[in-house]
This record gives sequence, C-alpha cells and structure tokens, in this order.
Amino acid sequence: MYGMDTRERLIQSTRELLWERGYVGTSPKAIQERAGAGQGSMYHHFRGKPDLARAAIERSATELRDRAQAAFTGPGTALEQVAAYLRRERDALKGCPVGRLTQDPDVMKDPELREPIERTFAWLTDRLTALLTRARDDGDLAAGLDPEATAAALVAVVQGGYVLARATGSAAGYAQAVEGALALLTRQGED
Amino acid sequence: MYGMDTRERLIQSTRELLWERGYVGTSPKAIQERAGAGQGSMYHHFRGKPDLARAAIERSATELRDRAQAAFTGPGTALEQVAAYLRRERDALKGCPVGRLTQDPDVMKDPELREPIERTFAWLTDRLTALLTRARDDGDLAAGLDPEATAAALVAVVQGGYVLARATGSAAGYAQAVEGALALLTRQGED
Repeated sequence: MYGMDTRERLIQSTRELLWERGYVGTSPKAIQERAGAGQGSMYHHFRGKPDLARAAIERSATELRDRAQAAFTGPGTALEQVAAYLRRERDALKGCPVGRLTQDPDVMKDPELREPIERTFAWLTDRLTALLTRARDDGDLAAGLDPEATAAALVAVVQGGYVLARATGSAAGYAQAVEGALALLTRQGED
Repeated sequence: MYGMDTRERLIQSTRELLWERGYVGTSPKAIQERAGAGQGSMYHHFRGKPDLARAAIERSATELRDRAQAAFTGPGTALEQVAAYLRRERDALKGCPVGRLTQDPDVMKDPELREPIERTFAWLTDRLTALLTRARDDGDLAAGLDPEATAAALVAVVQGGYVLARATGSAAGYAQAVEGALALLTRQGED
C-alpha cells in the first residue's frame, strides 16, 4: 500500500481484514497495524471501527457497480451486454466481496453497514431488469418472461457460482453455472 | 437438546457454533459448554475439534442430501421433481448450512473438512443432471441444452438465492430468483 495516503491505507486494510476475519474478528488495533497508522491518525480520519467498516464496504460496493457498469455499457445488443457481465473474468475462487458480507451476521444486523450491500444488489437487479426488458423488446427474449424475476435469477447464478467455485476448488464451477444460465436465456428466442 | 445422548449433543453444538462463529471461532471449550459435556467426555467420543467438526459437517451434508432426495423422488415428471426441489420451503434468510461453509477459509483449506462439502455439491449436481436428462428425453427441455451445465446453473441459483434473501432481508429474494430460473427452464419446451 506504498504511496497511498493514510486514509486510503486504513480503508484498504479494513477491506482486507473484513474479508479475512469478518467484522467481529477485525480489531481497530489490527487495522492500524496493517495500515501502518497510529490510533490518533485512525480517529482523525474515522469515528471508529463502524465508521471505517462502512467506508470499506462502500468502497467494495462502488467497485462492484463500476465493473458491472462497464459490461452493461459495452458493445453489442442488450442480451450481449448481460452475457458480458456474467462472463466477465472474476476471481471466482475468492468470491464476491459484497455478496460474502451478507453471510457476516455482525454486518447484516447493523443497518448502517447493511445499507450499501442492500443498495448494491437492488441496483444490480434493476440494471439487469432494464437490459432484459430491452432484450425482450429486441425479440431476443420470450415475451412471456418476467424481466425482474429473470434478473434475480441471474444475480443468484453469479453469487451461487462463487459458492460452486469454492466448493469444487475450481473456477470452472463458476463458468459452468454461468454458461448453463446463458444457454437457458439465449435459447428463449430460438425454440 | 434434552434427551439426546452426549455424542449427539456434541455434534449438534458443533454445528451451531460453526454456523454462528465459523471454524476458527469455535473452541473445544465452547462446544463442551453448549453440549453440557466435560472435556473427558468430548475426548471419549472424538479425537478433537477437527474430528468433531468433520462429524458436524457430515451431518449437515447428510440432511441436505436427504431433503433433496425427498423432492427428487416425489410425485410428477422429472421436471416437476426439479421444480419441487427448487421451491421446497427453505429457511432462506438463514442460508444453506453446507454452502455457507464454502466461505469459511479454515474449513476449505483442510481436505478432511472440505471433502463432505465437495462431495455434497457433486452429488447434487449429478442428481439434477440425471433428472434434467430425463426431462429432455420426456420432451420437457430443449434437445440442445446441456443437462450438466443446466444443473450447475440451478445449484447456483439456490445458493445465490440465499445470498439475495440475506441481502434484501426477505425470503422473497430467494423465491424470486427460483421462479425466474424455473420460468427460463419450463419455457424451453414451449417457444
């Protein structure tokens, strides 16, 4: 983290520790040590661990949205943009930094920490719903399909794909789930 | 846990603690306290924490397979059996006791603890692949679909549905993802 300013190092250290140890296992002292920052410096930038955790979660959520947005605004039809999002190279064995937080009971019971996670999944489902509605208007999806439920299924495939990759110890578990879902999606207009 | 024998109370206590605190946060002492068992009694039944964790994970895996098997052998066509599995009432907000273990780094790095998890997901994907192959032979699924990739997508939808339920704080997140996936699946034979 050489070259980052202290505030940034504190945020990145908190993201790493939340990932490795969860909220309950992330102490202010561990954050300070990893960031190479003193206690006074930490409290200069943040009110405490919850404030820092919120900033760390916001950062992970922003990065997720930026990566998804790049696929959603890439070349091709609406259906191709959806496929590009699903196929984007992911660090599948590591998992989704936002989705994994949903399994952290201490994060989910705090409304301030939970809010960016809930908002990110709502945003993702909304954007996919809009693209699938466009794909349906393009004639690439069957008219009878509900774009919102289809979007929820695709968001679930991505999140569950991470679980399969971890369970099988191979990123191929993620890829197979995504290709299975895309085959179901793209055959809609064909049969 | 009144009425259970000591060995069973130790297993159930370990399952609960793995769920609540993860492997690293589950101490032999906490297991003994929750089970109301002494240290001598614990070491009479199990060689130690890894042995007990293995028994607890095996138990969760067996229960998952038993519940799935009940849906897979229920009434109706192969496609209806798949739908029954996906729609089975689940404690969606709590999550999948087996899938969640894939996010526990201490469980996944131990081959002994990881094995029942890997085996369970392989079994689930195999069973769904067999049912989807039958559904295709029945004419309920498009001939061009790959049953194995479709099965992987459905396993991912279930696991990701749990993530969505937690993210939105509502079991409806799970139900919507499953219904979206089933609509994609069942329309295969129609269009």
